Amino acid sequence: MSAPHLLRFVGRDDVQVEVSPWGPHEWISRVGLTEAERLQLVRVTMPAGKAHKFHRHPAMEEIIYVVSGKAEQWVGQECRLLGPGEAAHIPTDVVHGTYNAGETELVFLAILSPAVFKGPALVDMSGEAPWATLRGEHAD
Amino acid sequence: MSAPHLLRFVGRDDVQVEVSPWGPHEWISRVGLTEAERLQLVRVTMPAGKAHKFHRHPAMEEIIYVVSGKAEQWVGQECRLLGPGEAAHIPTDVVHGTYNAGETELVFLAILSPAVFKGPALVDMSGEAPWATLRGEHAD
Repeated sequence: MSAPHLLRFVGRDDVQVEVSPWGPHEWISRVGLTEAERLQLVRVTMPAGKAHKFHRHPAMEEIIYVVSGKAEQWVGQECRLLGPGEAAHIPTDVVHGTYNAGETELVFLAILSPAVFKGPALVDMSGEAPWATLRGEHAD
Repeated sequence: MSAPHLLRFVGRDDVQVEVSPWGPHEWISRVGLTEAERLQLVRVTMPAGKAHKFHRHPAMEEIIYVVSGKAEQWVGQECRLLGPGEAAHIPTDVVHGTYNAGETELVFLAILSPAVFKGPALVDMSGEAPWATLRGEHAD
C-alpha cells in the first residue's frame, strides 16, 4: 500500500506550486508528493518574454513536452522551435534552455529522471561561454 | 555528440507510430529514437469505448498524464476519473489500467522509467483475480 500522504492520483488541486522567475511550476510527481523514485513531472507556465536560460542537470535525464504556445528550445548548441505536441530529449548533464518564442504564455511539461539522486539538481550555465552569447541579438 | 540517427528534437512527423488494440501509440522517446536511458514517452489516442485493461510493468515506474478527454484510471484497486492536466503515478509493478470514460477520444501521455531494462515490458493481468471482475457491471 502507498503511504497515506503520498498520492497516486494528482488532480488539479493536488499539484505543489512553486514560484520561479520564469513562471509558476506545478509539481505533479516528485519525492514527497507521489511515491516517485524514478519519475518527476512538473508543468511550467511561462509568460511571454520569459525563459529558463541555459542550465544543466548533472544527475538527471529530461524531456520537455510542449502543451501550448511556442518554445525556442535549445539542446546543446542546437535550437528548434517546438509547438504543441512536440518535444526535446535532453541526455543527462547536457546544457539546455527553454525560451518562450510566442506572444502568449508557453505551457510545457518537464519530465525528469531519476527522482532520487545526489548532488545539485541544476547548474546555471547562462553566464558562461559559449552559452552567454549563443543566442546573439536575441539574448535577453 | 549524439549519434546522428538519434533525435534530440521530436516533431510531429518524427514520432514512431505503433498500432495497438486500444488505439495508436506515438512514441516520442525510447531506445532507438532518442538517446533514452531513463525516460520513455508515448502519446496514446484511445477511441471511445476502448481501454488498456489491467496490466503491470515489472521493471518500470509510470505516470499517466491526460491531455484531452476523460480517463477512468485505476492504480491498484483504487479508481479515479481524470480530466485534462490530471495524472496518476504508478509505482513499479503496481497493477493499473486506463479506460476511456468519455464519449470522445482520450489522449494521454504515458511516461515510463527506465528506458533500458531486462525482462518483460508488460504483464497482462486483466484475466486474473481480482482484476477480471473489479469493474463489476462496467467490465468490458
